[in-house]
Amino acid sequence: MDYKRLDNHDIEMLKGFTAPDRFSTGESVKTLHSKDQSRHVCMLPEAVLWPLNESEVSNILKYSNEQRIPVTAWGAGSSLEGNPLSVCGGIVVDFTMMNRVLDVREEDFQADVEPGVIYKELNKRLRHKGLFFAPDPGADATIGGMIANNSSGTRTVKYGATRANILKLSIVLANGEIIRTGTRASKTSSGYDLINLITGSEGTLGVVTCATLRLRGLPAEFSAAVVSFPSVESAGKAVFEIIRSGLDPAALELLDRGCISLINRNTGMNLMERPTLFIEYHGPSISYIGEVMEVTRELCASSNSLDFRSGIGRDERDKLFSSRHRLGEMIVQNHTDCLFLSADTAVPISAYPEIIAMAREEVEKGGVTAYIFSHAGDGNLHLKFAGRKDNRDDWRVINEINNRVVSKAISLGGTATGEHGVGIGKRAFMAEEHGNSLIWMKKIKELFDPNGILNPGKIFL
Amino acid sequence: MDYKRLDNHDIEMLKGFTAPDRFSTGESVKTLHSKDQSRHVCMLPEAVLWPLNESEVSNILKYSNEQRIPVTAWGAGSSLEGNPLSVCGGIVVDFTMMNRVLDVREEDFQADVEPGVIYKELNKRLRHKGLFFAPDPGADATIGGMIANNSSGTRTVKYGATRANILKLSIVLANGEIIRTGTRASKTSSGYDLINLITGSEGTLGVVTCATLRLRGLPAEFSAAVVSFPSVESAGKAVFEIIRSGLDPAALELLDRGCISLINRNTGMNLMERPTLFIEYHGPSISYIGEVMEVTRELCASSNSLDFRSGIGRDERDKLFSSRHRLGEMIVQNHTDCLFLSADTAVPISAYPEIIAMAREEVEKGGVTAYIFSHAGDGNLHLKFAGRKDNRDDWRVINEINNRVVSKAISLGGTATGEHGVGIGKRAFMAEEHGNSLIWMKKIKELFDPNGILNPGKIFL
Repeated sequence: MDYKRLDNHDIEMLKGFTAPDRFSTGESVKTLHSKDQSRHVCMLPEAVLWPLNESEVSNILKYSNEQRIPVTAWGAGSSLEGNPLSVCGGIVVDFTMMNRVLDVREEDFQADVEPGVIYKELNKRLRHKGLFFAPDPGADATIGGMIANNSSGTRTVKYGATRANILKLSIVLANGEIIRTGTRASKTSSGYDLINLITGSEGTLGVVTCATLRLRGLPAEFSAAVVSFPSVESAGKAVFEIIRSGLDPAALELLDRGCISLINRNTGMNLMERPTLFIEYHGPSISYIGEVMEVTRELCASSNSLDFRSGIGRDERDKLFSSRHRLGEMIVQNHTDCLFLSADTAVPISAYPEIIAMAREEVEKGGVTAYIFSHAGDGNLHLKFAGRKDNRDDWRVINEINNRVVSKAISLGGTATGEHGVGIGKRAFMAEEHGNSLIWMKKIKELFDPNGILNPGKIFL
Repeated sequence: MDYKRLDNHDIEMLKGFTAPDRFSTGESVKTLHSKDQSRHVCMLPEAVLWPLNESEVSNILKYSNEQRIPVTAWGAGSSLEGNPLSVCGGIVVDFTMMNRVLDVREEDFQADVEPGVIYKELNKRLRHKGLFFAPDPGADATIGGMIANNSSGTRTVKYGATRANILKLSIVLANGEIIRTGTRASKTSSGYDLINLITGSEGTLGVVTCATLRLRGLPAEFSAAVVSFPSVESAGKAVFEIIRSGLDPAALELLDRGCISLINRNTGMNLMERPTLFIEYHGPSISYIGEVMEVTRELCASSNSLDFRSGIGRDERDKLFSSRHRLGEMIVQNHTDCLFLSADTAVPISAYPEIIAMAREEVEKGGVTAYIFSHAGDGNLHLKFAGRKDNRDDWRVINEINNRVVSKAISLGGTATGEHGVGIGKRAFMAEEHGNSLIWMKKIKELFDPNGILNPGKIFL
């Protein structure tokens, strides 16, 4: 695709669609929008705009489409695969100022929000209503970014990824046309599912300007357990038994010895340095949750667990889980001279021991540092690689291992990305994963965005 | 679209793609494939084929596409909106002989199946492995039909509709091309979601030849409660409280007085003839399920329940729920001189009392017979109308009421169809429900099926 560089006329037009103080070509602003939380190289946009409403977004896209100016939507910049970087220049549409919660319909478990709403802020507002938006990618992600990436996190094992929690979308298409799709009913068999087509499309098919979210009841009670196992295999068996039992955990995380060792050093928890499951439950009462924990203990024991620590109630849950939530931070603090790469693949749960063994072997053979943890209930593997800044050898090895782990995941029937999206970093694996269905994804892209202005250089090579 | 009528050459070619004994132009065979379980008029296909494998399906579609012969896929013929009727003639591809369970990967909660597998048969086979495929449309539906219609049922409130339970699909496109899409990992953020685009598209975008299903753990224990309320509003409040509490019911059904009266007459259950919730739970142990039932009793009491009957264990559950499962049959037996229309819409749960009041008023005013029951946890309303055979006045009034209820559902933010699909019967409501996003659905249809051979005359007017 040939794109146009912004000229003075374009700048005047785009300013006119927003306002002079909501348009910038300043270097510092462009630099702030040139990098997400990944290690992908900076890509400067030519200008940044902050629309206030759907009509402004529509005008911006219509004009950019006519002029062939690339348009990349921006949420919080918290993505991990370069998803919102301006690979082909053009403009960044920053949704920070479209951050209103438009309506909360408590009795329907629904909220209408603009894309710039940060999900943690939304959940603070919802707390007193006893509701929450369940997908939890961590970071200060916006709802718009979460929809673009189909984000998920520790709670996905119970509540699904973002796509399971979206009911309606307003979307501005490349040509500026506004469509609304979906229903406020909690289920439908009416027509083609455009919501799931847009969700996870990383801003390449359209730009979301309003979303109706499915909310969940905030559980009355919480509990947690930290359970050690002699091997990844025995921990994997416990994961299977817990899921099969219908116990419905709200988190089911597997951490390797390196992670546990780091937690012990940082918290004095004195956990066994063995493969360990962090398990969380949500429920309506203390006695309910106590019963669930007792069944969990029995299932873990039948999978040869070595140690079982449980805590019932919100405070006890928080105490046990705080080390899990702080793990990323502990890793960073433990390697002050390093940069990091968050690998992200997912495999069928039966293949989890194989991919974790392969990853561990690769890390040892390569002589690099990596921590293995995982949303085990979903078969989602994360490796957090720590490579010394400016050490080319470290990063060559890390990138090679990452590529081999991704290919291995695909060969095991899994996916190149469980939750971080394709962005720039996973484009090379799309043909391997999708075969000739990738051609049909490209045809859909051409149908919705014939000039290729929407977030070019992502998903497809 | 102009379609070709089958000539002798076409018949020879199509026979060649299958076998002489798997091709028929016989009247009785065509008649059997001219009608589903709805009241839509019979539509005779010109021929019926029974492929054995994907390659045969591909050859049939490639040829039909070149010759512009309509192709309609057929599962069990159990649909309720004329979804698989040959509106434009052409051939029916009957998947009855592609009914193999290809693989069950117990440890991954997955099964690979051909589209002709009947879900009840699959669940019989899975039972001894402690697994099941959760969507339960009733009837003897095939997996292929369930995917086409995004079917759901009483258990959807806990386990989701069909689309929440599909991981991979093999699809033959209109031009005969075979694509495979999805992953065996339980979550992914890789590329566009073609699975959800195909699921619910009623065979208009492609024909599914293999599906990887997400299975669930068969619960160790069951329980049920039948709870009477003074009004639909108080029952609705209990529904909200139960969902908000995180109790996670496996069924949450609301029945009107007419249904309860019929149940009392047929079973001697002596239930209060008031709006009644039928509630079911699945869980890992008796004590767990006992705890859940106690919390449910408290929540119902705080919503002014009048009577609460519960049963713990599979037998007690079966006793309480058998009347719910037999309700359809009781209605039919109670009106031997009648035909029936199953209305199907869904609304936000807060609008449920309003639509049920409106439906009841319309039924009374129209002087026709209808039973109101609903998957209340999903806001999915069913009215079963009983109209005298060949009584044009009955059916004029019933069709008018049905249309007004659907329009009302849409105006309340709901959908024209919660689970039966669009088929023939709901086409007229698509513009009302989807606005200009319907144009983009049509563009997707034209992209995948430019000659319009796949199940023509459905979804779009």
